Amino acid sequence: MTPVRELIRRKRDGEALTPDELAALVSGVTDGSIPDYQAAAFLMAVFFRGMSEAELVAWTDAMVRSGEVLDLSGVAAHKIDKHSTGGVGDKISLPLAPAVAACGVAVPMVSGRGLGHTGGTLDKLESIPGFRVDLSTREFAAQVAKIGCCLIGQTEKLDPADRKLYALRDVTATVESIPLIASSILSKKLAEGIDGLVLDCKVGSGAFMKRTEDARELARTICAIGRAAGKKVTALLTDMSQPIGWAVGNASEVIESIQVLQGEGPDDTRALTVALGAEMLVLGGAEATPAAGRARIEKVLADGSALEKFRQIVTAQGGNPRVCDDPVKVLPPTAPDNAPVTARRNGFVAVIDAEAVGRAVVLLGGGRQRKEDRIDPTVGVDVLVKLGDEVREGDVLAVANGRGDLSAALAELARAYTVGDAAPPRAPLIQEILREDA
Amino acid sequence: MTPVRELIRRKRDGEALTPDELAALVSGVTDGSIPDYQAAAFLMAVFFRGMSEAELVAWTDAMVRSGEVLDLSGVAAHKIDKHSTGGVGDKISLPLAPAVAACGVAVPMVSGRGLGHTGGTLDKLESIPGFRVDLSTREFAAQVAKIGCCLIGQTEKLDPADRKLYALRDVTATVESIPLIASSILSKKLAEGIDGLVLDCKVGSGAFMKRTEDARELARTICAIGRAAGKKVTALLTDMSQPIGWAVGNASEVIESIQVLQGEGPDDTRALTVALGAEMLVLGGAEATPAAGRARIEKVLADGSALEKFRQIVTAQGGNPRVCDDPVKVLPPTAPDNAPVTARRNGFVAVIDAEAVGRAVVLLGGGRQRKEDRIDPTVGVDVLVKLGDEVREGDVLAVANGRGDLSAALAELARAYTVGDAAPPRAPLIQEILREDA
Repeated sequence: MTPVRELIRRKRDGEALTPDELAALVSGVTDGSIPDYQAAAFLMAVFFRGMSEAELVAWTDAMVRSGEVLDLSGVAAHKIDKHSTGGVGDKISLPLAPAVAACGVAVPMVSGRGLGHTGGTLDKLESIPGFRVDLSTREFAAQVAKIGCCLIGQTEKLDPADRKLYALRDVTATVESIPLIASSILSKKLAEGIDGLVLDCKVGSGAFMKRTEDARELARTICAIGRAAGKKVTALLTDMSQPIGWAVGNASEVIESIQVLQGEGPDDTRALTVALGAEMLVLGGAEATPAAGRARIEKVLADGSALEKFRQIVTAQGGNPRVCDDPVKVLPPTAPDNAPVTARRNGFVAVIDAEAVGRAVVLLGGGRQRKEDRIDPTVGVDVLVKLGDEVREGDVLAVANGRGDLSAALAELARAYTVGDAAPPRAPLIQEILREDA
Repeated sequence: MTPVRELIRRKRDGEALTPDELAALVSGVTDGSIPDYQAAAFLMAVFFRGMSEAELVAWTDAMVRSGEVLDLSGVAAHKIDKHSTGGVGDKISLPLAPAVAACGVAVPMVSGRGLGHTGGTLDKLESIPGFRVDLSTREFAAQVAKIGCCLIGQTEKLDPADRKLYALRDVTATVESIPLIASSILSKKLAEGIDGLVLDCKVGSGAFMKRTEDARELARTICAIGRAAGKKVTALLTDMSQPIGWAVGNASEVIESIQVLQGEGPDDTRALTVALGAEMLVLGGAEATPAAGRARIEKVLADGSALEKFRQIVTAQGGNPRVCDDPVKVLPPTAPDNAPVTARRNGFVAVIDAEAVGRAVVLLGGGRQRKEDRIDPTVGVDVLVKLGDEVREGDVLAVANGRGDLSAALAELARAYTVGDAAPPRAPLIQEILREDA
């Protein structure tokens, strides 16, 4: 095999590597036969030189093959997953997965935990007493076959290359590379044995991608390599310039999710659920058009069948199913201390730094600064105003719920809100949709 | 201190680092507290982003301070060294150091071994029976004080940061970076306790820098950071589009060097010795102008005083001093097998790939592919024609001297020579001189 140094040099000099060479790099990094310092130099060269689509297809495929690929051949339905690049108050997976499953499309969803300013689906689910996210891959496949949906965490066996590469990227300042982000997301999803993926690519103050161009490039990249791997992929660019919904925090986001499943809930949470669900139904062959998909998702939210599917999921995964009827009673009570952030002038909500809201939740104990941190599901931020709302001096903008000294979180939260003379232009929630036929 | 990841990120994004930050990186890499993977990512970021002059001054200074700096305060004379970026047949240090010392300028020279296609001064000296290059720094300083010159190898104590960084660059494809090359060269030289340095920056087929622009940038960079460190620095860009002199090989280059010290030898070997020596005499205050310096070097080569100085050096370092009178008898005999490469047509020597000649010597056993390889001082290549020479079909262009099967070396050597219809334009041996007052 070509020496690793020579592969690094060629990437450094902008030359393309062959599929075999990329596969050798991935397997060498995963099994440790390629030392971390060579992997780190290669990753930094990729940061500067990127990867061609052909390279990225091979690189991602090698990552998938670094571990187990779930065998969902026993599931007759089409298997479609959704991935969000991460936001603040982004609880959409919770109402979305059961709603789509209620329409007959299987949703085998392997999710992550919160890290930094963004929350994670697993943490939210675990605030439901008894809910288990650590099922075996066999239990996972069986549940998807039986009730059409299962929500678990990544196992040791799935995509070990990504865990190794991500840990190295994290300490070598090579996280912010579109090909590396795209391959990390997609390899994990392809290892789930899915037929298709809807990507929710967040843009704005609470997203990793602050600029539309970057989000669009990431979306295009994931669409291209996912399709090259034989999967159906649709990507949406959606607004993340303010928190989604009214709740940011683990238990409180479960409550909001159940409100959506009860046919209620905030407009934006509901609208995202409907838009993403519609695309999943189209990819899963359950509906012919996005419009029909939207109507179908709205129907299952209104008629209780999405909530019933969520009840099946909670029950199957060991959680208390009464959470679906009276979440406030079943979930742990909200943290005892709270304090508001108020408007210091009359005007309109002009800017919300959603990342700062996310950081405030981390400071309250509801998120992680480091992977090993434990989280408190009962803390969070109530979001009382949205961009463009008119406010008067003294109006409450947001409330921090926590324990003890809330001052650091409050300071972060106060910085997040800017009241100005005029309402900002209203950004559409769904900014772009990249479908295969487009 | 700022986390290393953040320092990598700032370099990656083209931001400047402070002297303290660069010093922390150098010391952390040297003592191992910064892991190699972070160092590797940083080096690759430097490859792409470079370093400003201010950064490079601080980085180089930190490398010097990573180990011992030789104390030559006991040497009254000015202390001037020469460094060559490496070539094929480049034995210039051997006649140069004693010639300059014979003029009253001290030459404390710490040299390297051959690696890859280029030879090394230490390997050449060690072909003299008994010659020791592993003196202690105390012995080194004492010899410089006593006879004005000493030629040794790098010790463990000098510039450990460079050894660590170079080893890492070697395996991470980050060798070819002008700031990293410049800091590596200069930090080692500054640790010698010199007052000034003449840099022989090679350009052409046998050099690491094939293009004049790159060689010039390296020369300018070393001049700038060396002067910022308070040293006198002159750089020459010299032609390396063919081997220097008639001999490439360790013992054979000693013979050619002694011929120069006897007032004989090939024109180019002699001319380089005179040109570099003249600049060293100017930096060392022994002569006011390069012209006067050239005349002085020519004089000590002609009158035997340079050879006498070489005899003192050889004697002081344990070598057999009779090598100065009859090198062919004292040095080990040339390897027993030999074979010529001949011209396959009439014409003129149009191209010599000097690097291929160097590789042929490595294949004969006269150089190293890896650091731990042992070398055979008795093998080498006799260079019989120079660029522009007229040849007839069957004329011998070069002779390979080795042991046993010479075919691989001969094939490499045959590839090195191109006979064409016309003589190429004659490239000047000394292409540019960068002096401080220029």
